[in-house]
Amino acid sequence: MSSSISVVALAGGVGGAKLAHGLAQVLRPEQLTIVVNTGDDFEHLGLSISPDLDTVLYALAGVANPDTGWGRADEGWRFMESVRAFGGPDWFNLGDRDLATHVLRTQRLRAGETLTEVTRGLAAALGIKPALLPMSDDPVRTRVDTEVGELAFQDYFVAQRCAPRARAIRFAGAEAARPSAAVRDALARADLIVICPSNPFLSIGPILTVNGIRDAVQARPTIAVSPIVGGRALKGPAAKLLGELGHDVSALGIARAYVGLVDMLLIDTLDAALAPEIEALGLRAIVAESVMRTDADRAALARRVLASAGV
Amino acid sequence: MSSSISVVALAGGVGGAKLAHGLAQVLRPEQLTIVVNTGDDFEHLGLSISPDLDTVLYALAGVANPDTGWGRADEGWRFMESVRAFGGPDWFNLGDRDLATHVLRTQRLRAGETLTEVTRGLAAALGIKPALLPMSDDPVRTRVDTEVGELAFQDYFVAQRCAPRARAIRFAGAEAARPSAAVRDALARADLIVICPSNPFLSIGPILTVNGIRDAVQARPTIAVSPIVGGRALKGPAAKLLGELGHDVSALGIARAYVGLVDMLLIDTLDAALAPEIEALGLRAIVAESVMRTDADRAALARRVLASAGV
Repeated sequence: MSSSISVVALAGGVGGAKLAHGLAQVLRPEQLTIVVNTGDDFEHLGLSISPDLDTVLYALAGVANPDTGWGRADEGWRFMESVRAFGGPDWFNLGDRDLATHVLRTQRLRAGETLTEVTRGLAAALGIKPALLPMSDDPVRTRVDTEVGELAFQDYFVAQRCAPRARAIRFAGAEAARPSAAVRDALARADLIVICPSNPFLSIGPILTVNGIRDAVQARPTIAVSPIVGGRALKGPAAKLLGELGHDVSALGIARAYVGLVDMLLIDTLDAALAPEIEALGLRAIVAESVMRTDADRAALARRVLASAGV
Repeated sequence: MSSSISVVALAGGVGGAKLAHGLAQVLRPEQLTIVVNTGDDFEHLGLSISPDLDTVLYALAGVANPDTGWGRADEGWRFMESVRAFGGPDWFNLGDRDLATHVLRTQRLRAGETLTEVTRGLAAALGIKPALLPMSDDPVRTRVDTEVGELAFQDYFVAQRCAPRARAIRFAGAEAARPSAAVRDALARADLIVICPSNPFLSIGPILTVNGIRDAVQARPTIAVSPIVGGRALKGPAAKLLGELGHDVSALGIARAYVGLVDMLLIDTLDAALAPEIEALGLRAIVAESVMRTDADRAALARRVLASAGV
């Protein structure tokens, strides 16, 4: 691998954080930039919460809850117990350790720092070396149009547990949102862009909708990793959404969602039979073990992704 | 005791919270209004913190830390551990349970509620029935002029542990601060005002400096309880400050600080010998056991205070 190689990972959610962590294990810090979805961001209890940034932050810092993949290890819930006793809203769980991230972020944003600057500070404090960047410093808010009306993302995802049937997804503010200079620069000089095994609609969709990012991704060698294995999502509502939005609930459905954008799609060995159909769409199909149970699995998948793309 | 009796307690700090809790045990809710010092209030980590209001809130709700008298029982420190790991400021400890109070208060203040409204909501949620009122909805900030310069109160009190020798105390904003309508009304119809055994300079001083409160207290029957017992403060820097500001470190020093304002001073049996000198100042001296170790001690002292004043 060339020492001057430059890789950009697009990530959101638990699967994305796992592969981002794998890439961080096998690349040198200056070789990797991780661009993270902020469409899930919201204000709650007066705090600025960036769930996907935090999932990646905690995964890379080695402080994530190993059972859930999100949130913090050795987490406590005294804050939430107290909020509940005050009759405050308790539909979104904020752990005692996790809360420090939101309080510090909120304070720094109010003091005028950009989300990019705040994230850089938080990541540096936890010893994270690769660049960890929000997709934009401008607010983008994912909204899900469902059978019960349009819902703010966290209402759909957490409060309603993705139960209402989705009809469409939109990213409020995305058209006006610009990528930060750091994101633009990283994409422009990327030798490879890796689309992590994140939800293509809810996690990658918002990133691609930010002004200029889709074009920048299209212009570079790009490999995606399918978040659907054996017709199921390893985590989250990707499978349910694929079906509701009229797509094939399979790695082939993922291939179709990324046609014209990516050059390669890594699919799990379980889905090897789909490779010919994926290749017929014009994508190179890479077949590999893709389920990441351990830190070593993450590194192994990262190596396989890089090798497949020849970097 | 007449059912239409109306008592106002002025309080701040742990001793004040204890007697306020005693009064709440022996009076019916509609008979008691507690007016609390907000000179210690400050903004920290972007949160609006009202230490004295919270000490009274927790004492009356029965959720205070029984060992310290302030903060919450069964408190956790994961938030602070996490703040420290991020390199955030850790000189002021915010417990995981306690934090809920600050987060909810901050959110409601930002949404436009007054501190009076926010406090009413928090108290009601914890089942507190007597009126619990901040001395003012306008910001007052206690500042201590010391040998190392003027310090913000929490810097003096927490960060520097009251170590620098004090020369004077001032209450920034107090002259412009107005009591809320609820405080004005309670004072105007008070059959008795009780000045709790709080620090006369740091806890009661700010309350009395708010526009119109000193005059209102002077106009009503008033009893103070000495926070100095046997020449020592039961808690906090009252004794040290009395000495540094040139006062006698004794119940007599307290009497001199309240001359012209209160009609009666309750002093501990340990200080019975000072009664004649106190009475020579024109105050009636009441001698009683005044150290509150248990909830029953609080109620007993409250009963003694009320009986001494004939209510």
